[in-house]
Amino acid sequence: MTDSDKNTRHQARMARKKAMIDASIARADQEKGLLLVLTGNGKGKSSSAFGMVGRSLGHGMTVGVCQFLKSRTDTGEEAFFGKQAGCDWHVLGDGFTWETQNREQDIATSQRGWAVAQRMLADPRYDLVVLDELTYLLNYGYLDADQVLDDISARPPMQHVVVTGRAASETLRDFADTVSEIADVKHAYRDGIKAQQGIDL
Amino acid sequence: MTDSDKNTRHQARMARKKAMIDASIARADQEKGLLLVLTGNGKGKSSSAFGMVGRSLGHGMTVGVCQFLKSRTDTGEEAFFGKQAGCDWHVLGDGFTWETQNREQDIATSQRGWAVAQRMLADPRYDLVVLDELTYLLNYGYLDADQVLDDISARPPMQHVVVTGRAASETLRDFADTVSEIADVKHAYRDGIKAQQGIDL
Repeated sequence: MTDSDKNTRHQARMARKKAMIDASIARADQEKGLLLVLTGNGKGKSSSAFGMVGRSLGHGMTVGVCQFLKSRTDTGEEAFFGKQAGCDWHVLGDGFTWETQNREQDIATSQRGWAVAQRMLADPRYDLVVLDELTYLLNYGYLDADQVLDDISARPPMQHVVVTGRAASETLRDFADTVSEIADVKHAYRDGIKAQQGIDL
Repeated sequence: MTDSDKNTRHQARMARKKAMIDASIARADQEKGLLLVLTGNGKGKSSSAFGMVGRSLGHGMTVGVCQFLKSRTDTGEEAFFGKQAGCDWHVLGDGFTWETQNREQDIATSQRGWAVAQRMLADPRYDLVVLDELTYLLNYGYLDADQVLDDISARPPMQHVVVTGRAASETLRDFADTVSEIADVKHAYRDGIKAQQGIDL
């Protein structure tokens, strides 16, 4: 096949593709506040939520972020996004559950954290609410899953919510508009590389 | 089981978990510039790269971003990150290939774009380089894959590179330190919801 043939075929193929894509864009014409769930064992769940924080701030939207497990406040994400106008950032954890080793303390911490999330989910001034690592609190039973889903579903209709964390439950997935499952195909950590600034924290 | 039993068992289980995790952290003690590949059909590949941009800026790192397919400059990510000190943002596309329908034009655009990436990959002042939607240019054959991999592997040793896009090749995966495959379990788009500001653009 000559280069000219290749170019002609390419043009025809792309014209067909454009027609399909345009029709599909025309069909997707509704707007609403979305519930997105980013789960799975791979790298990129929280990072992806933080990318959406940046996108939202770029459109002048107001964003609330609850980091439920994290207790450290030396992360790049907090240093950067926490100081941005329009971004309300809360580090709500006491460290991971295996650090505290104290179930009652973890439950109390989780419930205090959820009260912060509830305030955001009840407030239409927040266009996006990120509930980072929420799944762990649900899976350990530190929060009541029914209460959490009730609060999420009663939020203002145009408010987006992003939930991250491994092993999102079937109920949470059913409830969500968009679910991405991030598989850990390969991770530098297993080759002895420690968590890297800018990439992992 | 009483609450007190539950708490005691929890403490023992978490103490074992902490010992395992601490040992695994102690084993991962190396630092190097990573190549991360975010692929798959699900939502969250570019968002995740942009989250790492935010994290890196929070640590005072210098970041370069090449958006290879995108031609629109009204996205939230560009509005937000493009104006940040330490972030060098380039929108290098002519639109998606089905918009131009012109293979020769797409090849020329891709090669001009790659020259921008090459400059970043050769410059140790960049701590992180994001090559957003690069896989499409490789999969369509618009760029020479060997050249691209040579340029990535010749970069400064502490520079991180994040590549996004569907259908990353086996070669690219082999080459990477971390690979996440993002599965599209569910997407609001298929329910007629259009791309939402802050979430998708």
